[in-house]
Amino acid sequence: MASALLESYAAGRWFRAQDEGRPLLDAATGEEVARISSRGLDLGAMTDHARSVGGPAVRALTFHQRAGLLKQLALHLSADKDEFYALSYRTGATLRDSQVDIDGGFGTLFSYASKGRRELPDDTVVIDGGLEQLGKGGRFLGRHVHTSRPGVAVQINAFNFPVWGMLEKFAPAFLAGLPTIVKPASQTAYLTEAVVRRIIASGILPEGALQLLSGDVGDLLAHLGTQDSVAFTGSAHTADLLRAHPSVLHGGLALNVEADSLNCSVLGPDVTADDPEFDLFVKGVVTEMTVKAGQKCTAIRRALVPAAMAGTVAEAISARLAKTTVGNPADPAVRMGALASLGQREEVRKAIEALRTSADIVHGDPQRVAVVGADAERGAFLSPVLLRAHEGAAAVHDVEPFGPVSTLVSYSTVDEAIALAARGRGSLVGSLVTNDPAVARDLTIGLAPWHGRILVLNRDDAAESTGHGSPLPVLVHGGPGRAGGGEELGGIRGVLHHMQRTAIQASPDMLTAITRQWTAGSARRVEEVHPFRKSLAELAVGDTVETGWREITLADIGHFAEFTGDTFYAHTDPEAAAANPLFGGIVAHGYLVVSLAAGLFVEPNPGPVLANFGVDNLRFLTPVKAGDAIRVLLTVKQITPRSSADYGEVRWDATVLNREEQPVAAYDVLTLVAKTRPGAADNG
Amino acid sequence: MASALLESYAAGRWFRAQDEGRPLLDAATGEEVARISSRGLDLGAMTDHARSVGGPAVRALTFHQRAGLLKQLALHLSADKDEFYALSYRTGATLRDSQVDIDGGFGTLFSYASKGRRELPDDTVVIDGGLEQLGKGGRFLGRHVHTSRPGVAVQINAFNFPVWGMLEKFAPAFLAGLPTIVKPASQTAYLTEAVVRRIIASGILPEGALQLLSGDVGDLLAHLGTQDSVAFTGSAHTADLLRAHPSVLHGGLALNVEADSLNCSVLGPDVTADDPEFDLFVKGVVTEMTVKAGQKCTAIRRALVPAAMAGTVAEAISARLAKTTVGNPADPAVRMGALASLGQREEVRKAIEALRTSADIVHGDPQRVAVVGADAERGAFLSPVLLRAHEGAAAVHDVEPFGPVSTLVSYSTVDEAIALAARGRGSLVGSLVTNDPAVARDLTIGLAPWHGRILVLNRDDAAESTGHGSPLPVLVHGGPGRAGGGEELGGIRGVLHHMQRTAIQASPDMLTAITRQWTAGSARRVEEVHPFRKSLAELAVGDTVETGWREITLADIGHFAEFTGDTFYAHTDPEAAAANPLFGGIVAHGYLVVSLAAGLFVEPNPGPVLANFGVDNLRFLTPVKAGDAIRVLLTVKQITPRSSADYGEVRWDATVLNREEQPVAAYDVLTLVAKTRPGAADNG
Repeated sequence: MASALLESYAAGRWFRAQDEGRPLLDAATGEEVARISSRGLDLGAMTDHARSVGGPAVRALTFHQRAGLLKQLALHLSADKDEFYALSYRTGATLRDSQVDIDGGFGTLFSYASKGRRELPDDTVVIDGGLEQLGKGGRFLGRHVHTSRPGVAVQINAFNFPVWGMLEKFAPAFLAGLPTIVKPASQTAYLTEAVVRRIIASGILPEGALQLLSGDVGDLLAHLGTQDSVAFTGSAHTADLLRAHPSVLHGGLALNVEADSLNCSVLGPDVTADDPEFDLFVKGVVTEMTVKAGQKCTAIRRALVPAAMAGTVAEAISARLAKTTVGNPADPAVRMGALASLGQREEVRKAIEALRTSADIVHGDPQRVAVVGADAERGAFLSPVLLRAHEGAAAVHDVEPFGPVSTLVSYSTVDEAIALAARGRGSLVGSLVTNDPAVARDLTIGLAPWHGRILVLNRDDAAESTGHGSPLPVLVHGGPGRAGGGEELGGIRGVLHHMQRTAIQASPDMLTAITRQWTAGSARRVEEVHPFRKSLAELAVGDTVETGWREITLADIGHFAEFTGDTFYAHTDPEAAAANPLFGGIVAHGYLVVSLAAGLFVEPNPGPVLANFGVDNLRFLTPVKAGDAIRVLLTVKQITPRSSADYGEVRWDATVLNREEQPVAAYDVLTLVAKTRPGAADNG
Repeated sequence: MASALLESYAAGRWFRAQDEGRPLLDAATGEEVARISSRGLDLGAMTDHARSVGGPAVRALTFHQRAGLLKQLALHLSADKDEFYALSYRTGATLRDSQVDIDGGFGTLFSYASKGRRELPDDTVVIDGGLEQLGKGGRFLGRHVHTSRPGVAVQINAFNFPVWGMLEKFAPAFLAGLPTIVKPASQTAYLTEAVVRRIIASGILPEGALQLLSGDVGDLLAHLGTQDSVAFTGSAHTADLLRAHPSVLHGGLALNVEADSLNCSVLGPDVTADDPEFDLFVKGVVTEMTVKAGQKCTAIRRALVPAAMAGTVAEAISARLAKTTVGNPADPAVRMGALASLGQREEVRKAIEALRTSADIVHGDPQRVAVVGADAERGAFLSPVLLRAHEGAAAVHDVEPFGPVSTLVSYSTVDEAIALAARGRGSLVGSLVTNDPAVARDLTIGLAPWHGRILVLNRDDAAESTGHGSPLPVLVHGGPGRAGGGEELGGIRGVLHHMQRTAIQASPDMLTAITRQWTAGSARRVEEVHPFRKSLAELAVGDTVETGWREITLADIGHFAEFTGDTFYAHTDPEAAAANPLFGGIVAHGYLVVSLAAGLFVEPNPGPVLANFGVDNLRFLTPVKAGDAIRVLLTVKQITPRSSADYGEVRWDATVLNREEQPVAAYDVLTLVAKTRPGAADNG
């Protein structure tokens, strides 16, 4: 399936390097899986291809069209999971590990497909925040928009998630309108290459939207500049080298780093050994030590426990680790597979030695492990190792063993726990296990500035929790300081990271033209036909209903109070209403005003408008007294077809005016409108 | 007023350097204004003081309290404007220039004071985006929050805006809970020092919230790390040096750069010499060349015009420039003052020489200028210089003359205009002058990825426009690539830049405890007293009204239709309603449902609840058929006191349920509630 020599997909074709490449070995058996090389690959041609072919093709699509392609891709790839699992075992991953990588990757595509259609417009520009009135007359407005960069998104990935690592970066970049060049870590690149082959063969993506660089990164960064970005996942050391690259220092190349970090899990001071939270904490630490053999940027490296509980916790974790079967990752009886390579195992052993200068091993032997169905010498197997830090130990906050290793650290107060966590100088994720809401608030607010994600675990959410170590597509992934200072995912946040935010200053009409959303103050178009008689295809931004007048009498207000039961004194008791500081007399119910407004603007007969499904941002601006009259201006603000239905959403700007032309209420009315008129001849 | 030797305000006291310092000269007269030195200043003690004294004091305040102090400060400083103007003349600035700097700075404080109270909660945590349901049962939720960093905000400013440059960075950092250390550019530091003296003497800010470093930056950056940030405004060259600092490369120090850039203004292809837009374009270019003698990061360096218009534009700009009086900035007849120093003038002359390799001067002589009320030799005066670029010229896109200099560049198509603008490799601001909406959309979307701000100018917004060169506190300031890649201001966006965004995963009850906003799914507290009888001080998040039932009959629906005039067929015509794909029969009006819901939850008698001023996020979730019944759960979600009134805002979560306990409508009800109960004994 994967070729003996992995190929790159570059500038529209599969490229085979000009040498034999270097071997990539099976993590569990030591056998050669594939070879890799990028010798002779023209990296400048790849970036040119991305800019001139891929980018324009992706940006020609709306967000909804891009989201639709992501969904197609997710469905297509999901059909071939077994083939990917088979390759994944060779990376040392168990089936459970592979699901995190492979299913997790496809799930990210599905998540972005869904978010893209629900939370982005069917256009290429995203509006950010509200209107800013910059002049007193309302003719000069400010609005922020996000637009697509005419650049390239390069991803340089770590070896531990060859599928998820690619797709979690690809999905938001693609939605943002960018072509991607993927550079997987060599060690597990055969799995990435297999997935990219499947993607390219499917023809689902526009040509140039995704290219693959199998092998060394070469001078790729030298071809990148102001509109480009590099998203790097890997060691803090490599991140430092990238930060010093001239394209980053002087060329305007944006660099987003997600580095391994010394994540902590804190056992709350309220938890006793009898509480369910105690078991949750212990299970959490063991899970994070053993999933992917601890080779996760998000794994728990530091387990912070109240000093009085440290011994009990050490025993409980050790007891559970003792039951962890290590060995052939393809064997269903095996809980923990191999590290990615013998070299990685050496690195972890060195880190354990560094930790031991100020910590004692309480479980596991770094030099020896019993394995099931595998050769302990040829495979990169390692026992899980639990350490317990001496008081005041420093190494535990600095040294990251990227394997099945965690260290217990004692604390005495919540403030000390926060200070210890901060000694990691910034982490991707922290967790706290407590059933005390006050502890949860204090610890969360204390830990948050040092973390990209915080899991608060207790008996209430445990059954549904996805665990400490799992980034989710809808939540931000990344962390400050040591963790790289970057941010990925987080739903649409991850899309906007790839776009440029720009403040636009313009007149209302110009803003309407630029954003394709109707802007308050811009022209309204009143035609003979009522807009409710137009299909989604016929409606245009700016189409307006201008209604006649309706007087609101004291009798109306009294009747409405009686009918609805809303006999609030401001509507029923003249004396008490007069004493109200805001009204100074009987006023109409806000709900009466909007009900009568609907009576004014509705077109009663069957037509394309199917339903009013909601109202947004309703504000009552001027009290309506008995004897006042109202009329309504209702204008199409935004039109959003739904790809999965024969109707779409129309957002209308509703402004209710009184006889003095003051706005008494302003809101958005949300309707569902059929894409076509069934009996067009009759209704038109 | 300003001491002969400028002092630093460091670690709670004014510090005088251990040497005599170097002289700072009046830009227009060459006389010594002050001397400056930071010799002997303990920069480590300053950062310690910020972290241990200033930061905790600022973070002990809520956003509303911090906003209140910003307003006090703005009012206090505004009283002393004349004193600051007098010093400002010595920087070479005219009164008009000084207003941009001084009034602009105070205006930024006012703007942040207002935004902070209106758009941030009266707490220390900011919620970001909506709830994410992470588990099917709703017991595991995700939410993003912003928290304050326990660090220091350092600002390193440019010489051209000694007041605004400090305050536009200080206001958002202070709101975000950070202490600030200001390092002004030496050349104009006497004005910054005078303002800081006034701030410190006022005692309005907590001690440690603001420190001043007068003199060299020394090893300040070496004292900064993961939770700290440096906001730099200045040359791209210095920015490159800062990016390469070890604290930035390896220490997790966040660096935000706003560098001078080659901003463009584009005359639309639709504009003829007879259009008002022609004059707007010409005036814009001349204004940006002469305000602050062109020493603005946002000035127009490149004027892009249709080739056929280039000659006409050159003449019109030259004619206007010919009327520009240069000289003593304190003279009301003078339109343009001096550059900041003779050294700056030399720099600009060199840049003009570089431009002349591929452009011709059409107005002005870099070596000669007639001055009014000043000595042309001792002051740093320079004539405005307009150039016209040769076809294909490169220098105009690379060389920035930081003075009263602009270059005309011809283009033939809108696409070429965009490509030329992009050759500046990222700018703070671009403007386009057009009265054609289609041109505005195309140019804006083409230019936006290269710009932090875009002004679209035409006859409609011109009277209210603040112009090409003016950053506004409510709009983002900064730009990609050459402009530094940073972002400042933009209202609350500028505050959030200083905070850490963290994804929190927790149960509903824990999220309520952490965010102090009621989270859907968390506990509701029903007590005997109706929450509408509680004052703002007595209400607590989670307080709930649980209502009885109300049946909705076919007669109710018919009556409501008749009464309101909302006779939409789904409420009135059984046959047509049955054919509606969403309803399948007569349904109650959504407005009827919410009106009856209010009838169920309202407490009718006078009490602390003064008014319902709005509704947010109303969604109709399940149709209500004739004969169904509804009840309401109304729960306090968020409590926001208003500092300027004796009431505050209470946001309630309203959920309307049917007999099957399905939600039929969900929304937020917004009320105004008195802070205290006037007749507490009667009403309780």
